[in-house]
Order: sequence, then structure tokens, then C-alpha cells
Amino acid sequence: MQHPPESVSIALPDGRSYDILIGTCLFDAAATWQGLPRAAAAVIVTNETIAPLYLERLKRQLAPHYERVDVVLLPDGEEHKNQDSLNAIVDHLLGQACDRKTVLFALGGGVIGDMTGFAAAIYMRGVPFVQVPTTLLAQVDSSVGGKTAINHPLGKNMVGAFYQPVRVVADLDTLDTLPRRELSAGLAEIIKYGPIADPAFLEWLEANIDALLARDKAALAYAVKRSCEIKADVVGQDEREQGLRAILNFGHTFGHAIETGLGYGEWLHGEAVGCGMVMASDLSVRLGLMPAEFLPRMKRLIERAGLPVVGPKLGIARYLELMQVDKKAEGGAIRFVVIEGLGKAGMRPAPDELVAAVIEAHTA
Amino acid sequence: MQHPPESVSIALPDGRSYDILIGTCLFDAAATWQGLPRAAAAVIVTNETIAPLYLERLKRQLAPHYERVDVVLLPDGEEHKNQDSLNAIVDHLLGQACDRKTVLFALGGGVIGDMTGFAAAIYMRGVPFVQVPTTLLAQVDSSVGGKTAINHPLGKNMVGAFYQPVRVVADLDTLDTLPRRELSAGLAEIIKYGPIADPAFLEWLEANIDALLARDKAALAYAVKRSCEIKADVVGQDEREQGLRAILNFGHTFGHAIETGLGYGEWLHGEAVGCGMVMASDLSVRLGLMPAEFLPRMKRLIERAGLPVVGPKLGIARYLELMQVDKKAEGGAIRFVVIEGLGKAGMRPAPDELVAAVIEAHTA
Repeated sequence: MQHPPESVSIALPDGRSYDILIGTCLFDAAATWQGLPRAAAAVIVTNETIAPLYLERLKRQLAPHYERVDVVLLPDGEEHKNQDSLNAIVDHLLGQACDRKTVLFALGGGVIGDMTGFAAAIYMRGVPFVQVPTTLLAQVDSSVGGKTAINHPLGKNMVGAFYQPVRVVADLDTLDTLPRRELSAGLAEIIKYGPIADPAFLEWLEANIDALLARDKAALAYAVKRSCEIKADVVGQDEREQGLRAILNFGHTFGHAIETGLGYGEWLHGEAVGCGMVMASDLSVRLGLMPAEFLPRMKRLIERAGLPVVGPKLGIARYLELMQVDKKAEGGAIRFVVIEGLGKAGMRPAPDELVAAVIEAHTA
Repeated sequence: MQHPPESVSIALPDGRSYDILIGTCLFDAAATWQGLPRAAAAVIVTNETIAPLYLERLKRQLAPHYERVDVVLLPDGEEHKNQDSLNAIVDHLLGQACDRKTVLFALGGGVIGDMTGFAAAIYMRGVPFVQVPTTLLAQVDSSVGGKTAINHPLGKNMVGAFYQPVRVVADLDTLDTLPRRELSAGLAEIIKYGPIADPAFLEWLEANIDALLARDKAALAYAVKRSCEIKADVVGQDEREQGLRAILNFGHTFGHAIETGLGYGEWLHGEAVGCGMVMASDLSVRLGLMPAEFLPRMKRLIERAGLPVVGPKLGIARYLELMQVDKKAEGGAIRFVVIEGLGKAGMRPAPDELVAAVIEAHTA
């Protein structure tokens, strides 16, 4: 069933703005691709998994708008979110003498979006780019906030830029080909917006989690739209991540420890965040910020979303060590995003014993 | 003789601002280094030529403000303005577990400033940085505009970002150790501000060019300050180089052709720009935009500044080809910055025959 596309307009601090188009059948609608910056060349960056599914359709839509539509095809996977892939994009652009009006299209999930956005940020000090996210995670997470990056051997997302797209096209039909695990991983980032910002959205999620898992397009459209709206509201108050924006990392400090401790790739990022949210919810309860029933409520929703709620036994010392090196640990003290009331999040340090008890309770 | 420091405040589009301090004895004045962002670590990026002259003095001044003052020492020269040097900075920052509050200090000329600024732009998506330019060129050119970049085997400054410093410290005493050729090269970028924006400044330069070459501190202070003010005015109207800002490239299209044609390093950038301004002045006359006497006037000032006014014989076809690939040649047609009246510049295409005649007239 086709739904009329939703559109969220994101206002930027410098007065510009861009639209996030959210809906079905967006790919093949000519209107989706109209009104973008004019240029001689468009360059689609995608990966080997996504290309067979959507590349030809995108090329066909862009052909009337550009003299040339090039493709940079990268290998799939987080392990390729590195300097080599970034170089491949930049080398292509320079090799084809692409000028500074060239429009880049990021066709894929978060890895493609992050790398393409970063390449757009630094090629000739910035060329326009369009996000075409094909995973649920990327549709909610890469659409707002302008975070782009590559990984470094010494850490994830350590090299990057804040750089905004000129448009985001979130075609929900692309979620039909998304593996079930990745669907759940995307739901983790959606679920977090309830406790940190919107109790009504948390209730809506509890009522609609099965529809979301069944890939009901109307439910997905609402969930993606509401997540983008909340994220835009938070980011709009803190574009460069000086303070408030940190609340978007609810569950991420524990989650990063799980990801790093297991080695990247074992758990999906969203899976680690899901389990991390269970831990962070428990920490909020143990700090006396939330009533006891908050923990089972969050745990049940996260579990129903198909996400793990029990973390790996890495040992408490290892967890603490991994969280210590997390880049959010500025100046030494680990600060956790905690829920201070339904719909309200804050940053707090926590005694090691409390953190240890949380880890003990939710690992096996 | 000590002069009280001048200060130019640069307002940024997002509401922030920073100061350019211009004067003598700034290095050893405690006030120069106060009020910078607080952080655990400062990292000074410099090169092997500058380090023996100023590194210890800067370290001594920063020591009271930071727990740790690190140094990244790079080889000197434009040929090292590349990915390897950028990696050296980023690897040091990550290797030392520098957090996102770490303040970078660019101690050196334009190459150090461009690379350090770019590293600051992309490390953890942006850390604060301070420009401490030690060449005249860097004092006028890197202080305003936020252009940072590295070179790529396929082109200069092809990878970079617009990223603003939190302060610029232009200590004119550092110019005492500057080789004469580099002093003249810096004057080329100063001279351009007369014809493109300020006839009175052009007259002032004609009256004070000998004092500038004699490194008179009061004259240098005024020249640097006025250049920064004009540049800030132009950039303020066009932060991302969409249009107006291109007038700052007066002389640069011809200049880049000379630089590339000879191979980088033969002529200094400012030398090529000096000669390029002679050509661009002639083109302005031949296009009927300026009276004939404008050409000898500019040529005489540029020559008095110790700059070359006759370009190398690369052949007209080669010049045209080199200018065609210049990144300012968007969409194919070469557009030149021309003077349309004293203090007023514009961008225009020009017939190949006219450009050829200009090149013929000013090469030998």
C-alpha cells in the first residue's frame, strides 16, 4: 500500500534547511529527485550488497538531471569504514575531475552514509550530498545531526566532520529487504527517543512494536518521522555536541563497551545499544532517579523488539576499562546518560560499585 | 620597538567570533595565551625549521594552562602537506588518548596552519585550534576565512574543510627570521587587497612598500590588520566560497598555472600570485574595464615588493590547459578575477585570444 510521503524539514543554525522525505515508492517518483543542486556530475556511493537492489533504479532517476552519473562501489561492512574507502571516493572524484558542484548520493546504510558524508565534507572543502538510507538505523540516525566519520585503527568514528545533507530520502520500501536482525537494531535507536524525550511515543511504541516488526509501512513512517523530529529538536539546541546532544547516547556507553569487548561485528550496534539501554535504565533506577518498574518496562519493550537484553560476560573490570576509554569520558570521569523522569534525560557520573552491580545483573 | 597589539575581531555566521592579535612581543606576553578553551592537553604542531626558533617559548607559555603540552614535529615544506602528515597528527592525538577538548596550536606558516586546521576540523569531528602564523603570508591569509586543507597527488588543497580557529596570534617579531623571498611572497597577498577592495590602501601600499620590506613593525601591523579586515568583510558575505569570495583569488588563476607548470616549489605561491596579478591587471585593461595606466601602476608596485613580474615561457597552450583544470573552472569555462574599477573586482570569462595576448606579453 502506498502512503503519501511525510516530510520533516530540518532547520540548520546558519539559516539553511533540508527535507527528510519519508514514505513508500519514493525511489521511482520523479518528484523525489527534483530541485536538488544543479551540477554536471552526480556520484553515487554504494556497496556490493545494496547495488544489485537499488543502484539501477537510482541511476535511472538521476540521469535526466546530470550529464554524468558515476558510481563508486565499496565493499560492504563496518570493517571497510576506513581511510581506504574514503580514499577510493576522493580518488574517484579527482580522477574524474569532478568539480565542487558535484552532488554525492549515499545509497546504503549508516556506513555508506557516514563515509559519503565525510567525503562530501572534505572534497574541495565541501560538496553537496544526498542521504538515501536503506536501513532503519540509517533512516533515523543518519538523517539528522550531520555526523559523518570514518573509523581509525585506534577507535570508531574518530575522524569525521559535522556536515549536513541537502536532502534525505528515506524510502520505507527498502526496509523490505532488510535482514530481521538489522530491523531490530534500527528499532533500538527508535525506542530510545521515548524515555529520553517523549513518554507518549514510548506508549505508542509499546502498542505498535509488533506492527513495526511486521514492517507495517504506516507504523514505520510514524516511528521514523517522530524519531527524526525528536532528534532534530535535541540537535537543534546543540549542533556540535557540547552538552544536551549527549542524551542521544542513552544506552551507548554500555553498548560501546559490549561492541568493543566482543570485537566489532559480533553484535550489531543497535543490538549493543538495546542491551545498553537495559543497563542504563537499571542505573537510572539504582541512582534513585526512576521507580523500580521502569526497568522491567524498558526491558520488555527492548526484548519484544527482538533485541538482546543480556550482555556478554566480559568481566566487570573490563567493562569499566572499556567505558573509560569511550570518547564521551572527557577528562577521566565516566558520565552516563540516565533517565531522570519519563521523557527527560541527563548526564551523571555514577559510583563504580553501582555500575558494577548493573553489569553483574545484566550479563551472563 | 614594542607596539601595543592590534586586535581584529572576526564574527562568524553562527554567532561565534574570534580575535586576531597582531603586534610585537606577543609570544612572551602571558595575556596572549589567556582565555583559551580549557583542556587537559595542548598539542603544538610545528615543523623542523620553526621548532628551534619558537617552540620552547610557546611551550613555556602554555605550560601553566594545560596538564600536558605535546608536540607533533613535521618535516618542512609544501611537499609534506599531505595525507601522511595529517595521519601523523591524528595518530599522535589518538595514541595519546587526546579527548575532544584538546586544543591544537598551529605554529608555523601556511602549510602548518592548513594541516593543523584540517586535523582539528576532523579529529573527533572537531577540536579547538589556535593559529600562530610565523610567515607574513600566513598572517594575512590563514587568519581569516577558515580554509584548511591538504594536497592530493591529483591537486593542491583538494581535501579540506572550512573550519575556524578560536584565536590567531600574529606576532610580527617572527617576521624578522623570515627569508626575504617569503616576505615578498606575503606582500603579494597584501597588495591584492588594494585593487580588489580599497583604493586608499593601494595608495598606502605605494607609499609604504619600502618600510614593509624593511620589516618596519608599525607598517607591517597596519598592512596585516587592513588585509585581515578586508578579507573578513569579503568572507563574511560569503563564508563557503559560493561567489563573492572568489575575488580574493585575484591573480591566482594565472598564478596557479605558473606554479603547476613549473612544478610546485620552483616559485613561491606569493611569487606566482604577484606575477599573476600583473597578468590579471593587463586582462582587466584589455577587457576595457580599466584604463591603460592601471597595468604599469600594478606592475611597478609588485616589482618594488620584490616579486617577479614576468612569467615563465610555458607556451600559451600549456597555460590555457593548466588554467582549465584549475578548480575555479567550474563547468568548463575559465572565469578570471578582474578589476572593474579601483577597489572593485568581479569574475568574468575572457576570449582565448585575449588571454593568449596577456600571457605572450608577460612571459619570457
